[in-house]
Amino acid sequence: MDMQLLEKGLSAVEEAMVAIVDSDVNVLYDASEHILSSGGKRVRPRVAFLAYLAAGGSEIEQVVPMATAVEMVHTATLVHDDINDHSVLRRGRPTVHSIWGRTFALLTGDYLFAKVYQMMAPYGSRQNVIMSNACTRLVEGETLQATAAKAGEMDQETYKEVISRKTASLFEAAARMGAIQAGADEPLENALADYAYNLGLTFQIVDDILDIIGDPETMGKPIGTDISQGRGVVVAQNGHATELVAEAVLEPNSVEQMINDLRESGAVQLARFQAQRVAQRAREALTAVPPSPARDEMEDLIEQVLNRDS
Amino acid sequence: MDMQLLEKGLSAVEEAMVAIVDSDVNVLYDASEHILSSGGKRVRPRVAFLAYLAAGGSEIEQVVPMATAVEMVHTATLVHDDINDHSVLRRGRPTVHSIWGRTFALLTGDYLFAKVYQMMAPYGSRQNVIMSNACTRLVEGETLQATAAKAGEMDQETYKEVISRKTASLFEAAARMGAIQAGADEPLENALADYAYNLGLTFQIVDDILDIIGDPETMGKPIGTDISQGRGVVVAQNGHATELVAEAVLEPNSVEQMINDLRESGAVQLARFQAQRVAQRAREALTAVPPSPARDEMEDLIEQVLNRDS
Repeated sequence: MDMQLLEKGLSAVEEAMVAIVDSDVNVLYDASEHILSSGGKRVRPRVAFLAYLAAGGSEIEQVVPMATAVEMVHTATLVHDDINDHSVLRRGRPTVHSIWGRTFALLTGDYLFAKVYQMMAPYGSRQNVIMSNACTRLVEGETLQATAAKAGEMDQETYKEVISRKTASLFEAAARMGAIQAGADEPLENALADYAYNLGLTFQIVDDILDIIGDPETMGKPIGTDISQGRGVVVAQNGHATELVAEAVLEPNSVEQMINDLRESGAVQLARFQAQRVAQRAREALTAVPPSPARDEMEDLIEQVLNRDS
Repeated sequence: MDMQLLEKGLSAVEEAMVAIVDSDVNVLYDASEHILSSGGKRVRPRVAFLAYLAAGGSEIEQVVPMATAVEMVHTATLVHDDINDHSVLRRGRPTVHSIWGRTFALLTGDYLFAKVYQMMAPYGSRQNVIMSNACTRLVEGETLQATAAKAGEMDQETYKEVISRKTASLFEAAARMGAIQAGADEPLENALADYAYNLGLTFQIVDDILDIIGDPETMGKPIGTDISQGRGVVVAQNGHATELVAEAVLEPNSVEQMINDLRESGAVQLARFQAQRVAQRAREALTAVPPSPARDEMEDLIEQVLNRDS
């Protein structure tokens, strides 16, 4: 039953995303629809729904706007990131700015963010405070990353701070808002938030690993983007990897060579170990959540995030 | 008494704006502080406070976060607009992107917008719905303007739609939120909203006129920017002005000549007439507001907006 509700919720999110961007200003609708319908993994709304269900909620439609909003925050940042990174491919499609140009891509990101705010507004203050804090943290994380990458100062501590803010905070917010919507008490809300936070860290580390070892075809985007911009999990590692990256940044042609070298160095293995460690924390957080089909699904989700190839 | 509260509120806004952007990510604080402390006219927060006072409110500090948020929405759009327009000067200072580069300017705009959301979150749903609708309309207005300017299709009807969404909607939201905070009944809330909406239209038309006849020194930015990009009040006029603008867009060197021609054509006079007409609607809206020092101030504000030179 729980899992039927989850699927129902997720397909309502797909519909809600496209319905909410139905502006009479055509380019905003076209560009929003282009990115929103390109089939992301929807892991963040999944987390919101699962937290709600694990906390005993049963009216899934209550969570649809917030789950949609969470996915749209993520989408808005993708559109703006792609401008800043000059990326031309995303989810196997041309990026918004490569089709509509930079001005309209910037405005589309702003529009998606305004729509997030609009979807969240009817909820109570508590959930809006959580969501707005997550949005702030996310922008801070992106900025910290850009600053550190530019200065060539992406160390372990900075990396952890970056992925905590740019990724884990939104995962955490998704779970917390879902839990609150179900009327969870504070310990349960915190356990679900703790799970999601660590799942978010896991997700991001695996994302960074896939930037090195992934198959561009499966991923729908080129690999080596993070690494060539001086960021990502292995850049933050000391030693051999750092040297390889520093060389490649100085001489961009050697990015492909560096990726090959990195695959053979211990860097990816070390990163996998780091992902396993935060995944373990996510598993541990679940022990404070009462058993349910939703909790089982949350456990499975950790493995899916760890083992994904796109 | 009312006007003392207004001044108290406005100076609290100055403090709140800088206090809220106090991120540990230095570039976000530095860039935000740079633009926020550059001394705008603060006409939008003024409208929020005056609507609150005119509706009988007396605890001005209740309005400070929303008035601050309104000014920060405006500021966020300035930062993003300046990227899109390649502007280098704003309020007599270099623009954010000309100091920190495009990536950080884009992130600073996003950050300011996230902070808006954060400041608004503690208010009730009703005010958040109003604010988020205004944000959506604002982005739509900017996009409509960029689309029409690019296509050379800025006619009267489009122009009205553009300034209604990109400027008047935020003025209206400011008044409506202030009125609600004071517990205004619906007719009073609507009268104040109607005033602010038309004040916003007036403000924008005058802004566009200043882009032609203003003194760059007093304005703290170059003139002719709108006109050379195929937008603004006179571009929307049919006849002589349109031809002049079309010529200048084809041959950018002639922008200065075109500005001179426009000053001598009837275009500016016609625009002044349009401004007077919407200003008159703002005055009429005030007749439904009970007399008070705040209402007098709102009347004066119309004249200030009409007669400003920067």
